[in-house]
Amino acid sequence: MRISEREFVEEVRREAKHKVALRPRGLTLRQGIGDDCAILAYSPQKDLLVTTDFFLEGVHFRREWEAAHSVGHKALARALSDIAAMGGIPRYAFLSLALSRTIKQNWIQEFLKGFLELSESQKVILAGGDTSASPDGVITDVMVIGEITKGQAIRRDGSRAGDEIWVTGSLGNAALALSLLRGGKKPLLSQLPFRVLFYPQPRLHIGRYLRQRKLATAMIDISDGLSIDLARLCEESGTGARIAEEAIPRFPPVTIQQALHGGEDMELLFTVPPKRSAMLPKSIGGVPLTRIGTIIPGRKLWLVRGDGKSRPLPILGFQHF
Amino acid sequence: MRISEREFVEEVRREAKHKVALRPRGLTLRQGIGDDCAILAYSPQKDLLVTTDFFLEGVHFRREWEAAHSVGHKALARALSDIAAMGGIPRYAFLSLALSRTIKQNWIQEFLKGFLELSESQKVILAGGDTSASPDGVITDVMVIGEITKGQAIRRDGSRAGDEIWVTGSLGNAALALSLLRGGKKPLLSQLPFRVLFYPQPRLHIGRYLRQRKLATAMIDISDGLSIDLARLCEESGTGARIAEEAIPRFPPVTIQQALHGGEDMELLFTVPPKRSAMLPKSIGGVPLTRIGTIIPGRKLWLVRGDGKSRPLPILGFQHF
Repeated sequence: MRISEREFVEEVRREAKHKVALRPRGLTLRQGIGDDCAILAYSPQKDLLVTTDFFLEGVHFRREWEAAHSVGHKALARALSDIAAMGGIPRYAFLSLALSRTIKQNWIQEFLKGFLELSESQKVILAGGDTSASPDGVITDVMVIGEITKGQAIRRDGSRAGDEIWVTGSLGNAALALSLLRGGKKPLLSQLPFRVLFYPQPRLHIGRYLRQRKLATAMIDISDGLSIDLARLCEESGTGARIAEEAIPRFPPVTIQQALHGGEDMELLFTVPPKRSAMLPKSIGGVPLTRIGTIIPGRKLWLVRGDGKSRPLPILGFQHF
Repeated sequence: MRISEREFVEEVRREAKHKVALRPRGLTLRQGIGDDCAILAYSPQKDLLVTTDFFLEGVHFRREWEAAHSVGHKALARALSDIAAMGGIPRYAFLSLALSRTIKQNWIQEFLKGFLELSESQKVILAGGDTSASPDGVITDVMVIGEITKGQAIRRDGSRAGDEIWVTGSLGNAALALSLLRGGKKPLLSQLPFRVLFYPQPRLHIGRYLRQRKLATAMIDISDGLSIDLARLCEESGTGARIAEEAIPRFPPVTIQQALHGGEDMELLFTVPPKRSAMLPKSIGGVPLTRIGTIIPGRKLWLVRGDGKSRPLPILGFQHF
């Protein structure tokens, strides 16, 4: 018998909450386990955002498929996407990197290049980390500290019945690329699905835009799949959702299953009160925004099919255990 | 051809320093790569300390030898020891935990218990982290954020020629325990070496004591071995050192080699100006302090043998790659 990842996180959360009576003065925890980032109050003007993200060979990537430069980019991009999902500004990164003895120097340098090119473009400073031997392959864990105007972080728990559900970009591209790789296709960065899989762009400018204009009531990044990440947002908010299959932005040959349940696209999912949605632009920085459904009372998630019939939304996104 | 761990850290440091022109306002980096913790200025009164520490099955521990409860304790203790080495106060921990599917629920719960017992005793709140499947065994990476009075962090680079070199506790216990385990001995927690290996106590109270009284000019925790960690402190300070073999605190059957080069004891190494050393107590919180040598000009490290003759100190501590 093994508990699921969700049950484990719930247990940690329960256990860790026992200890809140010990909360120190100074840095104060505003949000712990259960959102894209932890939120710490640290000044009268600012909150800190903290996130950590594993990127593990054999779990999240394969070295046969993914160039070292892309692994470096993506190791950081995943953490930046968590900062984006709160509407924050990333400041400092900490890189924990473990390597088996078979990894060549050239691989390490390309990895570092991919990491630092992204950090530089986002004005994020690599401030520390840890290095180690690894028992097998490449292990990375990236921690990012960001800042945000006090109290303005867009959490998962703010959606209310009636809010519109929106997503950035198009979904299912990374899932399509993975299925092509599994079928033996060579990756070509000239093709969108491979570009999304290997060089996903954290939507920091969109998160910031939504936060500054107070347009979003709740937000999460779609890292494990639309269905599971929507379920997470709804669970934290205590709400349900209805989304329309036909509204989900995708470029065929991406299938509806890939768009609904595929992970790794690094897009944002957010909710907007109907009276503010007129203020949403069609796109932000070239990335289109698309309405896909509505937050509803209750705790159920529904998918409206092409024929207009609703059925329960299957929750099939990636769970680690 | 592969670069060494030290060369890799140097390369990261060089590359990351290029980017310092991008330093943001708000949180300001006071110390990046090259100390036990990164230091960020965040208020007129306080600095933040940030550290991350891997604890990897097959590299840092073996599940056949080490109980889950101890793995949880030690995963956190290693990061707390880095905070201790700056004289800081740990506040928040972030646990990244990847588990292969073969790990049983009972193991996970015991791990969490070991982690949370230590965090509670040190008033550290578990505020977030990441969970993942692992390709093989247990992968942990623990990040701790601490606080310290502004500008008071005890860095590695503050030692000056003439300063006395001191250590806490006794050295080589964990190395002895490891050699006993390798020889097939069963671990007994009633024996000091196994207690040190499996339940090392981060010297937070000592770090704090030294910082509050401004007794130490430089400090580092002995995680990889006295010789290599002394070399690191001297390298950052631009100094040399002379230590006396006979002065190094150890309990036989710990050998002088184990005391000089064995890692994992989690003691502190610090330097004290001679005119302040009279203010050092014999012990702090029951942990003895021992003078082992002197910081000297130049960059060389010397070991004074029992016969009074000096020879270059071999640097044999643990390097990951």
